Amino acid sequence: MKTTRREYIKEGIGIGLSAPLMMVSASSAAHAAVEIEKQLQSGQTLRGIQKQHLPTPSLLIDLDRLEANIAKMARHARESSINLRPHAKTHKCSEIAKRQLKAGALGVCTSTIREAEVMAKAGIGGLLITGEMVGTNKIERLVRLTKKHPDTMSVCDNPAHAEQLNEAAVAAKVQLNVLVDIDPAGRRTGIQAGEPALNLAKQIDQLPGLRLCGVHCYSGASSHVMGFADRKAHSERVMGPPMESVAAIKGAGLPIEIVSGGSTGTYNVDPGIKGMTELQTGSYIFMDVDYRRIGGKDGEIYEDFQPSLTVLATVVSKNHPDRATIDAGIKAVATDRAFGPQVVGVEGVEYSLGGDEHGILTLKESSREFRLGDRVELLVPHCDPNVNLYDRVYCVRGDEVVEAWRIDARGHL
Amino acid sequence: MKTTRREYIKEGIGIGLSAPLMMVSASSAAHAAVEIEKQLQSGQTLRGIQKQHLPTPSLLIDLDRLEANIAKMARHARESSINLRPHAKTHKCSEIAKRQLKAGALGVCTSTIREAEVMAKAGIGGLLITGEMVGTNKIERLVRLTKKHPDTMSVCDNPAHAEQLNEAAVAAKVQLNVLVDIDPAGRRTGIQAGEPALNLAKQIDQLPGLRLCGVHCYSGASSHVMGFADRKAHSERVMGPPMESVAAIKGAGLPIEIVSGGSTGTYNVDPGIKGMTELQTGSYIFMDVDYRRIGGKDGEIYEDFQPSLTVLATVVSKNHPDRATIDAGIKAVATDRAFGPQVVGVEGVEYSLGGDEHGILTLKESSREFRLGDRVELLVPHCDPNVNLYDRVYCVRGDEVVEAWRIDARGHL
Repeated sequence: MKTTRREYIKEGIGIGLSAPLMMVSASSAAHAAVEIEKQLQSGQTLRGIQKQHLPTPSLLIDLDRLEANIAKMARHARESSINLRPHAKTHKCSEIAKRQLKAGALGVCTSTIREAEVMAKAGIGGLLITGEMVGTNKIERLVRLTKKHPDTMSVCDNPAHAEQLNEAAVAAKVQLNVLVDIDPAGRRTGIQAGEPALNLAKQIDQLPGLRLCGVHCYSGASSHVMGFADRKAHSERVMGPPMESVAAIKGAGLPIEIVSGGSTGTYNVDPGIKGMTELQTGSYIFMDVDYRRIGGKDGEIYEDFQPSLTVLATVVSKNHPDRATIDAGIKAVATDRAFGPQVVGVEGVEYSLGGDEHGILTLKESSREFRLGDRVELLVPHCDPNVNLYDRVYCVRGDEVVEAWRIDARGHL
Repeated sequence: MKTTRREYIKEGIGIGLSAPLMMVSASSAAHAAVEIEKQLQSGQTLRGIQKQHLPTPSLLIDLDRLEANIAKMARHARESSINLRPHAKTHKCSEIAKRQLKAGALGVCTSTIREAEVMAKAGIGGLLITGEMVGTNKIERLVRLTKKHPDTMSVCDNPAHAEQLNEAAVAAKVQLNVLVDIDPAGRRTGIQAGEPALNLAKQIDQLPGLRLCGVHCYSGASSHVMGFADRKAHSERVMGPPMESVAAIKGAGLPIEIVSGGSTGTYNVDPGIKGMTELQTGSYIFMDVDYRRIGGKDGEIYEDFQPSLTVLATVVSKNHPDRATIDAGIKAVATDRAFGPQVVGVEGVEYSLGGDEHGILTLKESSREFRLGDRVELLVPHCDPNVNLYDRVYCVRGDEVVEAWRIDARGHL
């Protein structure tokens, strides 16, 4: 579904439910649930399944939009002469990672060792784990993964941690690839820029079990600064001292092949920061309410990428004129933002949580009617943790469900 | 771990980390991760695995406490002459459901059709689905489940929905067991008490594909009213009109075997409400920060049940004296409450979200030191959605991990 910019704006938040979906009668869609499971278990592409046959709540990807987003970011990176290693924490889905690599990405970033293990198992190379692998369990698994996939990288922000990584690497006769994680003033992870960062780089370079390969510096605080100009200024300011450290480390003759950072909010800022070699953008493939709020270069809505991810829900109770209760609550929609999801294609309706399995739509001057059994789609507040709630995502083109992908790296074991 | 009440209060929030756990060196716990997976895959009881060997973030159950909670609620129900059908939406784990049945529960409640399917597959009978099964997919699956397990029950709050259920039941030559869902003034689901409820009961009773078997009335709004006296008054007030409807339906000669309601907050209130036949309490097995805040009969902390559920996390960055960054963020701790988790056994420390995979511990006057690699346990704000984030829960007695259970009904397909 290609839309011109004008049509897109006209559509409101842009994912058109062409009309309120009719409730399918039991007879016309008999055994739809059985049929979906049968087709999925046989591993075939889905055929003859429509969006309205799906169980709810379900996670949907508009495949045309996802593909457009992947292609746009890949083109942007090429044109900006910066590498792209998208963050897989957003999707946790090896099928999406494969498409990112096919479009030109070097590999993917992951937050956790489990995400990296799942991606590696699915044949995704070029893994950069952007979280510190601290503690026996994580270090042991990092060592194991690196033995199988010697290009695996991870990060370090502490001299004691460097020693621990080295000890495990030497014992296992493997070399671990390490980026110095420098703090862009967020005080979450990362060593302080300046002397501490330089000294840690030197230490890593000298330890026999470690190979220094770069610098990691992610400014989460920059990603959602409202307004393009302020966002640009924020990223340039906080990335300044870390980039001076990059120059100092290089100046000391140490090998810095990779300098990784950047978010979907700063994808068109950070390539201009001297020293950066690659972007680790994640959310651009899906977008969400939070990112749409931050504003773009040319408008209040950030529309550089298209919202492709929604939650499909059903009206399960309709006993009051001013509200409709749907089957998407705390366990279907990530709740870490102060605002709720937006109902796609409908004006004058507000979502609020109604418990674990319920959402309440308050109908003020709703632009559509809601009847028992009607379907609605929600644009979620924050895409990453929302995807993590689902084992599977259904990929649609228009109303047709064409594929279903496992969110194979979701959750915690 | 049995503790007297005095020791329990002394422990603060009560799950004693006896001392800050030492970081296990890579050599002493070599291959712990491999060993855990191997033991789990062979289906055996875990042996020789200590808490500090576990990956983080992980979900833990203190098994002694869980067992004590299950036994206490079962005893309470027996002594109050009320039946118990605990809500499985809290744990989504058939292993726990089995233990609840063994202690005397009639069956379990579920919110979703998927939870019911998973419980049935694990051999759990007496299922009551407390969410309206609206739409083809859910109705079809309800019919299929009822064919296999004829005692399955679900709820209805709308005449049109009753017709839809009946149509599907008649077509499939099955009888669906239905409870009238009456709204206790929460306006989430449920038909209005009085005439509407009575008429719906009559309609269900007359439809050939449906069997009227009771009334469902859950007051979520009562469950967390602060202070026992106010909570009792709230529940009694909002349950009044629905219970009058129960009497009217019975008075009309209709069969009402079951009247189900009640929460962990009102478990000792609702047995006194005339008409109620069973409790559907859920959170009592785990408890959480939110429930501990509501106050009990004899104190500001609600301690009728013991907190048995925690998230185990690791300090993964420690570069500032006033903070420690742990590996438990938005994807490890449910975020639907306005407050965060509590760090178990530590005073003077506050948790805040630090992104998808990070939590920030702000150390004010912390009663313990935090070093890189240290383990911490978090008492979660809201147990139900927290469990839903994990595929597996580790059961511990003291520091020993004795079992690992699948959260087999978690997530959405």
